Amino acid sequence: MNKHVDVPFRVRYAETDQMGVAYYANYLVWFEAARADFCRARNYPYSQLEEKDDTFLPVVEAHCRYLDSLRYDQEFIVRTSLKEFRRRSCLFEYQVVENEKNNLCAEGWTKHLFINREGKIRSFPKSAEKFFID
Amino acid sequence: MNKHVDVPFRVRYAETDQMGVAYYANYLVWFEAARADFCRARNYPYSQLEEKDDTFLPVVEAHCRYLDSLRYDQEFIVRTSLKEFRRRSCLFEYQVVENEKNNLCAEGWTKHLFINREGKIRSFPKSAEKFFID
Amino acid sequence: MNKHVDVPFRVRYAETDQMGVAYYANYLVWFEAARADFCRARNYPYSQLEEKDDTFLPVVEAHCRYLDSLRYDQEFIVRTSLKEFRRRSCLFEYQVVENEKNNLCAEGWTKHLFINREGKIRSFPKSAEKFFID
Amino acid sequence: MNKHVDVPFRVRYAETDQMGVAYYANYLVWFEAARADFCRARNYPYSQLEEKDDTFLPVVEAHCRYLDSLRYDQEFIVRTSLKEFRRRSCLFEYQVVENEKNNLCAEGWTKHLFINREGKIRSFPKSAEKFFID
Repeated sequence: MNKHVDVPFRVRYAETDQMGVAYYANYLVWFEAARADFCRARNYPYSQLEEKDDTFLPVVEAHCRYLDSLRYDQEFIVRTSLKEFRRRSCLFEYQVVENEKNNLCAEGWTKHLFINREGKIRSFPKSAEKFFID
Repeated sequence: MNKHVDVPFRVRYAETDQMGVAYYANYLVWFEAARADFCRARNYPYSQLEEKDDTFLPVVEAHCRYLDSLRYDQEFIVRTSLKEFRRRSCLFEYQVVENEKNNLCAEGWTKHLFINREGKIRSFPKSAEKFFID
Repeated sequence: MNKHVDVPFRVRYAETDQMGVAYYANYLVWFEAARADFCRARNYPYSQLEEKDDTFLPVVEAHCRYLDSLRYDQEFIVRTSLKEFRRRSCLFEYQVVENEKNNLCAEGWTKHLFINREGKIRSFPKSAEKFFID
Repeated sequence: MNKHVDVPFRVRYAETDQMGVAYYANYLVWFEAARADFCRARNYPYSQLEEKDDTFLPVVEAHCRYLDSLRYDQEFIVRTSLKEFRRRSCLFEYQVVENEKNNLCAEGWTKHLFINREGKIRSFPKSAEKFFID
């Protein structure tokens, strides 16, 4: 089982700002898309957690350090790993690496709770655990 | 009852792109926020339609003509009017007017169906009609 | 030379709204990313037009008809073609097709002017024309 | 001079996601709009820093803790203060407070460098300092 998952992206025009670089909030959008692909790579799509297991993973804390800017049309990957996986919470880590020079452009993390549709904290579904434990 | 409603906005940094102007998809976001305020000005917040009346207004067609660009931090209004109001659909019209020179920057429209939570077409709730008919 | 170009996408969580479907303004973002890939497929990346040819393609008109909704994590393609290619303007057409059932979810078009960095209308760069004429 | 500045917002439909709450990346967009209004309240609009003083404030680090969710159409304020103001960097702090129950929904901070148009680190313009020092 792969410890991390690399998800490829390209900066959209919509994601640039007038400074000519990718706007800072978009990194959190990429983190989200990357952790969705992380779950898929573990053979347990996030959508399945919501629909079949009544388990939602809202973000309770997010952090990002911006080291170098990304420009329009640049290709990069978001390297995602599941750093902590507890009964009621988990923590994903991300590295944003620009492809051409293999340059680390940003790194961050997000902390998530497990809740049900009603918003109550719950433990991670037993049947899905084995997909996320290394 | 006012025929149109003017809603004030200011271009956010997030809404600019590397051309140094507001990115074109954001106008549709402003249209949405403006028609929400249109409903509120008619004393019937859109949220009430969804929550109390099980009536949703998905967009089935959208159009925008861009006449002049908007820049970061510029103030503008979206002038919104309800051009058609039928049993099962309605059409909103918008004018985006920059404040300083009273310059028309864009105009557009959105067509909406009335559906319920299950996605079935429905007629507009009787009790709410009077708020939207002039 | 291919008449149209198919660009694959997947609906991000960020792109959904509380109706549980992709928010309508995002289609214009996908159109933009798709026409960038259209240009790339023609061996002339859009970024090159801006950087090497001082040619920008702002949108002067946009239209979208929404036929069926897209949900979180759904895969779809945007089929893009260059319908008109004139001296000072062009028109792209798009079809949004959901992968699983090959369902047409939306169709739209965008009209663009050719301008230089100073915002003046210009003709399309001669050296790049052959990449876009069929 | 006010130590903090309160900027009013309302959750747009575009900003909700299928969990029925405001998507987490939008808080960073609100932080940006709020610090722009912070600068304006200090009589020195951020746009002036860029245009007149060749001073840009890219974000080098961002953090957000999400305590309670915000729903569509909810009104809230972002309370912004300038916590650190150094020669070459500064740090803004934010509190997101929902209006109805005066409920703290999120808190965060952003760290910024001062750079010029070419991307070189520079010190804050002398003439503008007095607007930001308490």
